[in-house]
Amino acid sequence: MIDNIPGNSFGENISMGDEANRVKTGIEGFDDICGGGMLRDRTYLVSGNSGAGKTNFAIQFIYNGIVKYNENGLIVATEEKPEHIRENVATFGWDLEALEDEGKLAIIDASSTKIGIPSQEKFVDVRPFDMRSMIDQIITAQEETNAKRALIDSSTALGFQIQDPPKIRVELLKLSATLEILGLTSMMTCETLYENEVSRFGVENFVTEGTIMLNYHRQDNVRSRSIEVYKMRGSDHSKKLHPYDITSEGIVIHPNEEVYML
Amino acid sequence: MIDNIPGNSFGENISMGDEANRVKTGIEGFDDICGGGMLRDRTYLVSGNSGAGKTNFAIQFIYNGIVKYNENGLIVATEEKPEHIRENVATFGWDLEALEDEGKLAIIDASSTKIGIPSQEKFVDVRPFDMRSMIDQIITAQEETNAKRALIDSSTALGFQIQDPPKIRVELLKLSATLEILGLTSMMTCETLYENEVSRFGVENFVTEGTIMLNYHRQDNVRSRSIEVYKMRGSDHSKKLHPYDITSEGIVIHPNEEVYML
Amino acid sequence: MIDNIPGNSFGENISMGDEANRVKTGIEGFDDICGGGMLRDRTYLVSGNSGAGKTNFAIQFIYNGIVKYNENGLIVATEEKPEHIRENVATFGWDLEALEDEGKLAIIDASSTKIGIPSQEKFVDVRPFDMRSMIDQIITAQEETNAKRALIDSSTALGFQIQDPPKIRVELLKLSATLEILGLTSMMTCETLYENEVSRFGVENFVTEGTIMLNYHRQDNVRSRSIEVYKMRGSDHSKKLHPYDITSEGIVIHPNEEVYML
Amino acid sequence: MIDNIPGNSFGENISMGDEANRVKTGIEGFDDICGGGMLRDRTYLVSGNSGAGKTNFAIQFIYNGIVKYNENGLIVATEEKPEHIRENVATFGWDLEALEDEGKLAIIDASSTKIGIPSQEKFVDVRPFDMRSMIDQIITAQEETNAKRALIDSSTALGFQIQDPPKIRVELLKLSATLEILGLTSMMTCETLYENEVSRFGVENFVTEGTIMLNYHRQDNVRSRSIEVYKMRGSDHSKKLHPYDITSEGIVIHPNEEVYML
Amino acid sequence: MIDNIPGNSFGENISMGDEANRVKTGIEGFDDICGGGMLRDRTYLVSGNSGAGKTNFAIQFIYNGIVKYNENGLIVATEEKPEHIRENVATFGWDLEALEDEGKLAIIDASSTKIGIPSQEKFVDVRPFDMRSMIDQIITAQEETNAKRALIDSSTALGFQIQDPPKIRVELLKLSATLEILGLTSMMTCETLYENEVSRFGVENFVTEGTIMLNYHRQDNVRSRSIEVYKMRGSDHSKKLHPYDITSEGIVIHPNEEVYML
Amino acid sequence: MIDNIPGNSFGENISMGDEANRVKTGIEGFDDICGGGMLRDRTYLVSGNSGAGKTNFAIQFIYNGIVKYNENGLIVATEEKPEHIRENVATFGWDLEALEDEGKLAIIDASSTKIGIPSQEKFVDVRPFDMRSMIDQIITAQEETNAKRALIDSSTALGFQIQDPPKIRVELLKLSATLEILGLTSMMTCETLYENEVSRFGVENFVTEGTIMLNYHRQDNVRSRSIEVYKMRGSDHSKKLHPYDITSEGIVIHPNEEVYML
Ligand SMILES: Nc1ncnc2c1ncn2[C@@H]1O[C@H](COP(=O)(O)OP(=O)(O)O)[C@@H](O)[C@H]1O
Ligand SMILES: Nc1ncnc2c1ncn2[C@@H]1O[C@H](COP(=O)(O)OP(=O)(O)O)[C@@H](O)[C@H]1O
Ligand SMILES: Nc1ncnc2c1ncn2[C@@H]1O[C@H](COP(=O)(O)OP(=O)(O)O)[C@@H](O)[C@H]1O
Ligand SMILES: Nc1ncnc2c1ncn2[C@@H]1O[C@H](COP(=O)(O)OP(=O)(O)O)[C@@H](O)[C@H]1O
Ligand SMILES: Nc1ncnc2c1ncn2[C@@H]1O[C@H](COP(=O)(O)OP(=O)(O)O)[C@@H](O)[C@H]1O
Ligand SMILES: Nc1ncnc2c1ncn2[C@@H]1O[C@H](COP(=O)(O)OP(=O)(O)O)[C@@H](O)[C@H]1O
Ligand SMILES: [Mg+2]
Ligand SMILES: [Mg+2]
Ligand SMILES: [Mg+2]
Ligand SMILES: [Mg+2]
Ligand SMILES: [Mg+2]
Ligand SMILES: [Mg+2]
Repeated sequence: MIDNIPGNSFGENISMGDEANRVKTGIEGFDDICGGGMLRDRTYLVSGNSGAGKTNFAIQFIYNGIVKYNENGLIVATEEKPEHIRENVATFGWDLEALEDEGKLAIIDASSTKIGIPSQEKFVDVRPFDMRSMIDQIITAQEETNAKRALIDSSTALGFQIQDPPKIRVELLKLSATLEILGLTSMMTCETLYENEVSRFGVENFVTEGTIMLNYHRQDNVRSRSIEVYKMRGSDHSKKLHPYDITSEGIVIHPNEEVYML
Repeated sequence: MIDNIPGNSFGENISMGDEANRVKTGIEGFDDICGGGMLRDRTYLVSGNSGAGKTNFAIQFIYNGIVKYNENGLIVATEEKPEHIRENVATFGWDLEALEDEGKLAIIDASSTKIGIPSQEKFVDVRPFDMRSMIDQIITAQEETNAKRALIDSSTALGFQIQDPPKIRVELLKLSATLEILGLTSMMTCETLYENEVSRFGVENFVTEGTIMLNYHRQDNVRSRSIEVYKMRGSDHSKKLHPYDITSEGIVIHPNEEVYML
Repeated sequence: MIDNIPGNSFGENISMGDEANRVKTGIEGFDDICGGGMLRDRTYLVSGNSGAGKTNFAIQFIYNGIVKYNENGLIVATEEKPEHIRENVATFGWDLEALEDEGKLAIIDASSTKIGIPSQEKFVDVRPFDMRSMIDQIITAQEETNAKRALIDSSTALGFQIQDPPKIRVELLKLSATLEILGLTSMMTCETLYENEVSRFGVENFVTEGTIMLNYHRQDNVRSRSIEVYKMRGSDHSKKLHPYDITSEGIVIHPNEEVYML
Repeated sequence: MIDNIPGNSFGENISMGDEANRVKTGIEGFDDICGGGMLRDRTYLVSGNSGAGKTNFAIQFIYNGIVKYNENGLIVATEEKPEHIRENVATFGWDLEALEDEGKLAIIDASSTKIGIPSQEKFVDVRPFDMRSMIDQIITAQEETNAKRALIDSSTALGFQIQDPPKIRVELLKLSATLEILGLTSMMTCETLYENEVSRFGVENFVTEGTIMLNYHRQDNVRSRSIEVYKMRGSDHSKKLHPYDITSEGIVIHPNEEVYML
Repeated sequence: MIDNIPGNSFGENISMGDEANRVKTGIEGFDDICGGGMLRDRTYLVSGNSGAGKTNFAIQFIYNGIVKYNENGLIVATEEKPEHIRENVATFGWDLEALEDEGKLAIIDASSTKIGIPSQEKFVDVRPFDMRSMIDQIITAQEETNAKRALIDSSTALGFQIQDPPKIRVELLKLSATLEILGLTSMMTCETLYENEVSRFGVENFVTEGTIMLNYHRQDNVRSRSIEVYKMRGSDHSKKLHPYDITSEGIVIHPNEEVYML
Repeated sequence: MIDNIPGNSFGENISMGDEANRVKTGIEGFDDICGGGMLRDRTYLVSGNSGAGKTNFAIQFIYNGIVKYNENGLIVATEEKPEHIRENVATFGWDLEALEDEGKLAIIDASSTKIGIPSQEKFVDVRPFDMRSMIDQIITAQEETNAKRALIDSSTALGFQIQDPPKIRVELLKLSATLEILGLTSMMTCETLYENEVSRFGVENFVTEGTIMLNYHRQDNVRSRSIEVYKMRGSDHSKKLHPYDITSEGIVIHPNEEVYML
């Protein structure tokens, strides 16, 4: 556990000898606390309560991939409509539509058609819900964009459609196995109900290679946010809770600040 | 996070650069804490325990829309009878019937007929419960009033009729998608059982773009009220709990006062 | 929130400008804390744990209606047998039988026959349980007594027979809608299991216009009682817990005393 | 609430003006705290955790009835075998067999035959379990002994055979109604799992006229016992927890001592 | 409650006037705290969490019966295999096989064959699970050994096979009734999940005459063991928690030491 | 309880007289706290929350077996894919592939094919899940490698496929019985949800001879790890929580350091 990250000054020694293997998120402060980035071709769970910032965090991973690291991206939107996603992150100055037009980003609309409302999107997952057809859409979109990163937002909305936890595990396993075969390094968001809960249906962490926990908690009468690299197979990482903010430029993590929790 | 609201003095910096896009509630103190108002054409969840003031809060949003901002409104009453609603808010000096007569407000009675009791209302949702027919009523009422704001009071009473959470999610998704297509900025009330709970059936926040939490809590032997903008996609907002009162003029929020919670 | 109750000295300002509209309970100290009485023609939930005094409180509302305000009354007994009710409140000096003989009170026996035991009562609800037939009994009894107040004691015993919460909601909604149409101002008792719980099946408060909570709680090794007007649509009310006693003259509320709870 | 019990010195005023109506338990200290005894012809729930002393307490009520008040008794044994009951209370110097031989006591064996084991008892309830046949046994035994007091030990063992709580309520209601019609003042024991729980299946207190709670709780590393008259319709009673012991002469309650609970 | 045990110095008076009737466990310190031993021909529940020492405690009761009191024994092994049991207790210097060879002990293998694995044991309960056949095995083994003591280890493994709690109660009732008829004083182990829980399925204590609770609890970062005679019908007993150890000679209880629990 | 481990200085006396019988894990600090190693031919449960380090711990047991003790090993991978396992532990400098090539280690792929994805592995468990076929694979792999140690990682993923706890117990019992018959000393990992929970489905500890608990807990805003030998039939062991780290050389336990827990 020799601390070989020059700039690391947050009191933990995180070994990091495999930089080549790492997919950087480019999120300020985050790559530092996870040993240099995600492991290539693996799928990670991004868990947290409603409003914690999971969607923003994961889109920033995709957006940075395209604009900072030249890795195209793919978003499967099962909860929010693609047009809302575009509008929401526009407040951070991110122009997803431009990236889509350049063929660098594909957003698969996997929510609207489910309820019989026609979608204007290019990539639309037909209804009723079927993991097979969603996977086909992902394969098509990946071929068109040559994406290297993917986001499934959220596994929880998928879970509601599948309902039975053991079946959710199998279907999500098919999904993450496919993402890996396609050479995608991925995030899958997961909305939890209680603090410290790893997953919603108790099975999502069984199909992923690590878990990042985002937390939006109240202390006295104000809420603040914190992030934790909870598990990351095959890698050392920070064991601390790190405060973060959602600013007008997106997520900013403060790896050197302390969170005080009860 | 530059504080660009001149009058904001409650110790938080809430960016607000999209005033055109904002639908003001006109509720004293509220627009300040949510960055200037609701985002146009989106649906928000108003959650809280019984008696918190959800119905009063949401009707004030509709009422102010009509009398302060010239935006007509639409109320779907699934829990209280329209005549009770009119009587109840009359104590705040609000004359809903007058607004209805002027064609500025429509109240859809979606409760009485469900139990076989004839309704005197103009807009009545036929029985038995069916989301399709409720949506048709909403479309008709919207056409007649050219409403820009809507209130579904409450999603919980609807949920009791649908029963199965995954099905509740799908039906409410249809509802919120319709409200958006009709150009309505909407609130959907949701009655929770436990403090800090975001929704009753665990799915309502999956079909809305943000959550406002109202809380009626006891400290020692007296109850008081507080409000929190818990989540608001695409916008900055206050992260604090703000005390509020129900006065003889309706809801008044005190954005600069502190709530002390255990 | 101008305090216009001359004698109100318990540190809260409760507006009360609609005295004509109010149905007084005549229970010492209670009308003060609810803004002058119940709202006419509405149904209220009286919730609390076993032994809290719900039945006594609600019968006192009926009894006072007859002897103090000249409003006849109606009791639907689904839990205790009418003869027990008469015996129990006789200890407070209340002679229900006399009132029944004078045609001012009707007690509908809705428990005994359910288990095949013949009833000596005048108003007996036939078995097996069916809300339709109970409502018919209520209509008959109301016609005979010209009652203005009603008590359903308890909604919980009814709920046990219906079993399914969504169905309980619908059946109780029929019941409260009927009570209103008959011009009855009513109380419906509800036995809760845990402190701070509003209702037993989670739906009873959805069919009533307000909730009064009675609480029988232990502090150290002694139990005491407290009452709270938890919710009252269309009215201001005290937000405090008020201690009360069951004395040899019935319920006495102490609006100016404090309850100290942990 | 005038304290008219000469010897009452435990700091509570319990009114007691109906001594004629009272069925004394003769248990040292108990009649004092319940206003003079049980109300005649009513059924009371004796709740408490395993080992609290419910069976001993209730048998003492029956035993004292016979030897002190000349009121014969009846025990329905659904949990322990009659021969064990006789042996167990023999350690208190009570000779049940002698009372049975004198025709003053009947013990109905309602457990052994259920599992196909022949019973040597005189009163045996045939299998399989059926409330009708148990009630017939009770009627026979009551006729033979002219009993005035009864004990059902325990309602919980009965409940296990009925299983469905709403059905348990109906069957126990039949039972308690029969006991009353037969002119029996009765106790029904009920084994709870958690402290402060009134009943096991949530319905037993709906068929009885009062609840006595026995509690066997640990403080630090020693257990002690306390008793509370939790509810008693139509009567004032102590609101305190009173310590008690099981001594070589049976139950002894200490009405003037305090219990210190956390 | 006169303390008639000469050597009893642990601050409690436990009456014990029926020594003839008592079956001594011979476990150091235990007979003292239960009033002299188990009551003859009765079945006791030995409850506690995993690893508490239930199996060791109960085997010591059987082992001591044979070597100290000349009472042969019988073990029904439903969880561990007989050969493991022999190996495990050999570390205490107990040679079960020798006792089996002398015809003083019988171990019924009621686990292995359930899963289709042949057993080398003499007494094997055939599959699939059926209480009738297990009882037949017990009768055979009792006849061969003339056993006076029995152990069912564990009732929980039996419960898993029966699954439905009411059915578990009936089957275990048959079992304990048989043990009694055969003249066996017995222990039945029961693995609980939570501290202070009396039984796993909520019914095991309904078929036994007393409960001994073993507890393996953590304080700070070390675990220690304590034992409590929780209930013992027809007998006085210690009401304290007593620490105990598993030493190289088996269980040793320290009746005069205190346990400090939070 | 004579302390016969020369180097043992952590304040506990752990007897250890059966060194021949012990299977050493070779994990720094661990064999000390469990009395010298696992008991030969038995199966142990390794329980703990997600990310605790169960997989790493158990693989180290297998790896050390081969490289330090000349005992070949066998891994059944039901959760992670074999290629991920190889990559992950490569960061500790362990070259599993080399050991596989030397015929000293077999990894059975029991996950990939379940979802219809072809596996490149030599040992692949065919789909759909069936314990019989998994056992056949184990037998084959054991014959080829002459393995003496086995790891089932994880029993929880198996449990999800079986679903019904009583059935999980039976199937895992078959599995552990087979492992024993094959002469394998084994670990079975188990992912728990709550601290202090022994197993996920409440039955896994009924088919194993001991439980090792790994714990990844947060104190203030940092997580640390601790390990406990919770139960070990037939053996003395440490009763303490011991801190451990996952370093670049794998698991290191600190038997002499204290863990401070709330
Ligand atoms: N432009 C912005 N400036 C500051 N905060 C923002 C902005 N946009 C969104 N947020 C914050 O992000 C939250 C939504 O985050 P999101 O990623 O959608 O949460 P999750 O997916 O975890 O439910 C909003 O509730 C708000 O607090
Ligand atoms: N005129 C009034 N003055 C003061 N408070 C009022 C007035 N009318 C209603 N209230 C308060 O509003 C509460 C009801 O609020 P409501 O919006 O119906 O709650 P919810 O919908 O969250 O259950 C009442 O219980 C009362 O406390
Ligand atoms: N005459 C009386 N004097 C004092 N207290 C009484 C009298 N009669 C009844 N009570 C009290 O009232 C309680 C029963 O109240 P009740 O209204 O039946 O409760 P609930 O309906 O909430 O279960 C009794 O347990 C007792 O404490
Ligand atoms: N002779 C006795 N002396 C002292 N205590 C006794 C005696 N007999 C029984 N007990 C106590 O009574 C308890 C059993 O009481 P019981 O009435 O059967 O409890 P319950 O029915 O509430 O489960 C025993 O566990 C013991 O503590
Ligand atoms: N020879 C021994 N010396 C000390 N302790 C032992 C010995 N053998 C077993 N133990 C202890 O006994 C425990 C197992 O007890 P057991 O009776 O099987 O528990 P239970 O049946 O309650 O699950 C082991 O975990 C260990 O702590
Ligand atoms: N090379 C490494 N250096 C330090 N820690 C590591 C390394 N590899 C893995 N870890 C730690 O091991 C954890 C995974 O352990 P694992 O055994 O897979 O947990 P479990 O099986 O209990 O879920 C990672 O989250 C990380 O904290
Ligand atoms: Mg999201
Ligand atoms: Mg409302
Ligand atoms: Mg009542
Ligand atoms: Mg009992
Ligand atoms: Mg055991
Ligand atoms: Mg693992």
